Amino acid sequence: MDRRKMLGLAGAGALGAAAGGAVGLQVFDDPPPARANDPGAAVPFYGARQAGIVTPAQDRLHFVAFDVITEKKAEVAELLRKWTAAAARMTAGRDAGAIGAVNGVPEAAPDDTGEAIGLPPSGLTLTVGFGPTFFRTAEGKDRFGIADRRPEALADLPKFAKDALKPEISGGDICVQACAHDPQVAVHAVRNLARIGFGVVSVRWSQLGFGRTSSTSRTQQTARNLFGFKDGTANLKAEDTKLLDEQLWVQPGDGPEWMTGGSYMVTRKIRMVIETWDRTSLAEQEAIIGRNKGEGAALGKAGEFDEPDFSGETIPRDSHVRLAHPQFNDGARLLRRGYNFVDGSDGLGRLDAGLFFIAYQRDPRKQFVPIQTRLSRQDALNEYIRHVSSGLFACPPGVSAADDSWGRALFV
Amino acid sequence: MDRRKMLGLAGAGALGAAAGGAVGLQVFDDPPPARANDPGAAVPFYGARQAGIVTPAQDRLHFVAFDVITEKKAEVAELLRKWTAAAARMTAGRDAGAIGAVNGVPEAAPDDTGEAIGLPPSGLTLTVGFGPTFFRTAEGKDRFGIADRRPEALADLPKFAKDALKPEISGGDICVQACAHDPQVAVHAVRNLARIGFGVVSVRWSQLGFGRTSSTSRTQQTARNLFGFKDGTANLKAEDTKLLDEQLWVQPGDGPEWMTGGSYMVTRKIRMVIETWDRTSLAEQEAIIGRNKGEGAALGKAGEFDEPDFSGETIPRDSHVRLAHPQFNDGARLLRRGYNFVDGSDGLGRLDAGLFFIAYQRDPRKQFVPIQTRLSRQDALNEYIRHVSSGLFACPPGVSAADDSWGRALFV
Repeated sequence: MDRRKMLGLAGAGALGAAAGGAVGLQVFDDPPPARANDPGAAVPFYGARQAGIVTPAQDRLHFVAFDVITEKKAEVAELLRKWTAAAARMTAGRDAGAIGAVNGVPEAAPDDTGEAIGLPPSGLTLTVGFGPTFFRTAEGKDRFGIADRRPEALADLPKFAKDALKPEISGGDICVQACAHDPQVAVHAVRNLARIGFGVVSVRWSQLGFGRTSSTSRTQQTARNLFGFKDGTANLKAEDTKLLDEQLWVQPGDGPEWMTGGSYMVTRKIRMVIETWDRTSLAEQEAIIGRNKGEGAALGKAGEFDEPDFSGETIPRDSHVRLAHPQFNDGARLLRRGYNFVDGSDGLGRLDAGLFFIAYQRDPRKQFVPIQTRLSRQDALNEYIRHVSSGLFACPPGVSAADDSWGRALFV
Repeated sequence: MDRRKMLGLAGAGALGAAAGGAVGLQVFDDPPPARANDPGAAVPFYGARQAGIVTPAQDRLHFVAFDVITEKKAEVAELLRKWTAAAARMTAGRDAGAIGAVNGVPEAAPDDTGEAIGLPPSGLTLTVGFGPTFFRTAEGKDRFGIADRRPEALADLPKFAKDALKPEISGGDICVQACAHDPQVAVHAVRNLARIGFGVVSVRWSQLGFGRTSSTSRTQQTARNLFGFKDGTANLKAEDTKLLDEQLWVQPGDGPEWMTGGSYMVTRKIRMVIETWDRTSLAEQEAIIGRNKGEGAALGKAGEFDEPDFSGETIPRDSHVRLAHPQFNDGARLLRRGYNFVDGSDGLGRLDAGLFFIAYQRDPRKQFVPIQTRLSRQDALNEYIRHVSSGLFACPPGVSAADDSWGRALFV
């Protein structure tokens, strides 16, 4: 059933109800079909890789981390099957399930919550990942008999200098990254997955974001973070296929076979002290970042994509761009896919704003961990940021056919 | 200085800096000009009415309420002048002030934070309002000698049945409603107003929203709230000019002259218990709302805009649409301009989601207050909602020329 051509069998509500409770039909017209390059268009769900990683970053994010609250492996496997089916429907612009009477039972709650009726697919992608605690709880319990399938690369992140993590918005057993060009579509997807998961999973934390910082394709312009700087100029991009095999996708032999073709996701909610930043001079801001604010060029260079020259002192030694550069990190790179956030205010007269950092990589032990270790100790930017949440998830390869499902290989 | 053609005088950061600290120029190209009906286009700032009231509701909201922290009237008046100038610039797609060295002083912080560089005006509107505490503090103090200018219509709202208001996200001395089609543009505007207000005002609370519920023009389709229902079908609309004079705009003789042509704004953050709602049958949902979910037609009717027939029992007596209808409220109507919100999760396994309700009217004592009194006592929807924040603001008429400013008549 298409959410744009809904045939809802309804009780009291529909046409004919006034004539004595007769069953009515609610019919919707198709919207205009999505055009090429239309932000309303659908991104294919099935494929060798999960969508939402190298997919050109959409404008909006709703990220959710769930705790699994059942101890029954079969219930988890069944939920992942249901979720996969719903994800395939929703990313195609359809509803998560019937909106009208379910299986002809008018007393049943709808299988879709309805707020995306009439909206196009909007580039929705849903990307799933499994956290370390999915395999073995923090208390060491192997709930589902899959502890031995936990990849070594999914090793708990170390505590970094200046970490100010809040456990209640960190971690999680399963995450879903919903990206779309319309926040209502992303929110609808997360909410319906949560609804389907009732009794099996519980929302641990969730985060909305906007203004994709870090383009993931050369077809996109670089967006700006809330420091006002372009972010993601040197990001790994979808077009760098050779580099992606080296740096992004888990290769055969890297670890458990079920992760081959997948990727590891690190999330960090980075609160920015924007009020202090906004009182810093442009020259100092640029020295801290190591790029100029307007064009995004490395200091001493003219164009955004000109290669930085780290030979002299033009780019300060404690600047962000220098410390994060592959040249000083054994060539390690990340595919970043972060979003700006504003979560209202903090009760102290300040906006609660920053960057929800998301990075994908082949092995966090060789990529995010050493890079962040260096940044957390030396980065001049640390005066203006605080990491308040952290997540680590193993994102399996894509779902290849209609009878496959998220994480199926993990449960075989 | 245009934010899309920035000439930033920069110190260490710009071209030529490597050659010994010479001053460089950062030049940006103009983006393509906005087309008609383009969501990137600008909404005029100057006019007899403030923009952002009957302006066709944009897709995104950043609402902010400030506390005034100075006791000096001149500082407040000066801030309102600065804000007005910055608002005129930003709504035209320009920066809030210089991004490069300010007045030639390279050590000064930029006068714009930069994250909207390169973005079009995006339909940005900035609408200002003054709360009851602006005129006299909660402790009864007449800080600025304007207590006698407080309109009688700006009477504190009564406590309604089932109110669960949190004081820290309610009220405020001055509010700004920023609406735009791009959240980054709305956030940029609020942040820069807060930056300009440093030392004079402090952010009390702020709220982001998306998916405008309540279209304010017949040119718009009705959007859906997070109950999945169309919201705002019977809203006052920009085209109802006669009704707007009756119901929306403060008329000569209504109250203090400085408010003539203005309007009163009520905000209510309404948390929805969506998980419970989602387990309710479609028939029950429709009986509670009084409309069907698909089309949005009143029960017993076929089309969204068909006039409801309240004569029988088809539309239940405790349904939302009936209780809120002008027919049962002495003809009182509102111009609603609400937005959906999701503020992450609540720590209890649920999404923290709902509706940020905004309504404009000629006199809250005759409109919002009696309507909400009735709803708070009888509405079947109350089982699924909780009002957690409340605001009331007097929004003066528009700024008519470049030397006028927000609230100027209040300070003369």
